[in-house]
Amino acid sequence: MLLARVEGNLTSTRKHPSLDGWRLIVCQPLDHTRQPKGAPVVAIDRLGAAMHHEVIVSSDGAAARHAVNDPKSPVRMMIVAIVDNASERTEVAAV
Amino acid sequence: MLLARVEGNLTSTRKHPSLDGWRLIVCQPLDHTRQPKGAPVVAIDRLGAAMHHEVIVSSDGAAARHAVNDPKSPVRMMIVAIVDNASERTEVAAV
Amino acid sequence: MLLARVEGNLTSTRKHPSLDGWRLIVCQPLDHTRQPKGAPVVAIDRLGAAMHHEVIVSSDGAAARHAVNDPKSPVRMMIVAIVDNASERTEVAAV
Amino acid sequence: MLLARVEGNLTSTRKHPSLDGWRLIVCQPLDHTRQPKGAPVVAIDRLGAAMHHEVIVSSDGAAARHAVNDPKSPVRMMIVAIVDNASERTEVAAV
Amino acid sequence: MLLARVEGNLTSTRKHPSLDGWRLIVCQPLDHTRQPKGAPVVAIDRLGAAMHHEVIVSSDGAAARHAVNDPKSPVRMMIVAIVDNASERTEVAAV
Repeated sequence: MLLARVEGNLTSTRKHPSLDGWRLIVCQPLDHTRQPKGAPVVAIDRLGAAMHHEVIVSSDGAAARHAVNDPKSPVRMMIVAIVDNASERTEVAAV
Repeated sequence: MLLARVEGNLTSTRKHPSLDGWRLIVCQPLDHTRQPKGAPVVAIDRLGAAMHHEVIVSSDGAAARHAVNDPKSPVRMMIVAIVDNASERTEVAAV
Repeated sequence: MLLARVEGNLTSTRKHPSLDGWRLIVCQPLDHTRQPKGAPVVAIDRLGAAMHHEVIVSSDGAAARHAVNDPKSPVRMMIVAIVDNASERTEVAAV
Repeated sequence: MLLARVEGNLTSTRKHPSLDGWRLIVCQPLDHTRQPKGAPVVAIDRLGAAMHHEVIVSSDGAAARHAVNDPKSPVRMMIVAIVDNASERTEVAAV
Repeated sequence: MLLARVEGNLTSTRKHPSLDGWRLIVCQPLDHTRQPKGAPVVAIDRLGAAMHHEVIVSSDGAAARHAVNDPKSPVRMMIVAIVDNASERTEVAAV
């Protein structure tokens, strides 16, 4: 699972049918100082992530296929959590 | 799943039989500003992606094996969506 | 499996239900000289890893799903070991 | 699946039994201009790839285990296609 | 599968029970000129790899779980071959 920031979404007319009705979110992985690191991934989302939200993205294909209710779907990346905002985070940063 | 741009295709005479009849597309991953990032991947395609199209590539092996109808196929990467073009994208860029 | 250092945790109110009650740890991968290398991953933990601990993180989805007791969970990364501290490590560094 | 160039092979006396009799090929991933990119992977091969051949490497573990006929084998990377040579490629480079 | 060099091992008192009794080896991936490339991985080993040995590491989770005889283990990386030494390698470097 990756820590990432939402950088936009994508629309697609020609796509695998299991993607119909899902938001396709561009998620930029972050380093632990919250700087961009590496190439973005594209994930489905039903938690309602908005622009510049920090999110946790999972690459678990089995779970994503379950989410779209299609065992043959090629969907593989899913937003699994929206990170609480920085003011909240400061209070809990020490493990 | 990765956001990538089509940079060409490959032909192969000696290959795994499950690849017969499939287009083998070279897909260059992009960062969220649409610049190349990292090494390209090779994906099968039946959506009809053309040169320089932006696409979403999935690495879900189970789904790719289903697509080629061979449960023993080593195929693993598949183009799962062709991103609508930039003029359309601008209107929907805010999540 | 990656060698990583704990760099904080994350809290999330909106998340997949299978993440409820689990600590979400930001783990920075390290090179063999213990310098940061690459983007951090987010892992669940029940070993009690604390800030700056060195840990081993596994990306095995099947095992993580078992840990959270939900076969449909998208959880994929889990801390599987806390590395003993440097003074102990020095004595055993030679394989 | 990755586009890669064959850069040599490896011999190993002490190895997992499922690797017996297989060629272990060092494959250097390439970018779309055919320059080396990232760390090499080691793949099994039965297509007969030779030094400096361009190949497509799959990381599908299920398919590789089938190829070596051992469902418990740790083999994971396999050469699945040898790319036709440059003169042929030029003619088909436009998708 | 990756080509890597053994750079040490790790000891851990608090760990997943399936790791008990296994050596945890820090393996530094190498490029094809044998220079370090990317972050190290941590692998289990029962072939007896020693410091600075070159090894092949597999990330096949299914095979690793079989090796530790625990279908729920999070173990994922395993040393699957120790590469024969350089003098032997020179003779066989041409594929």
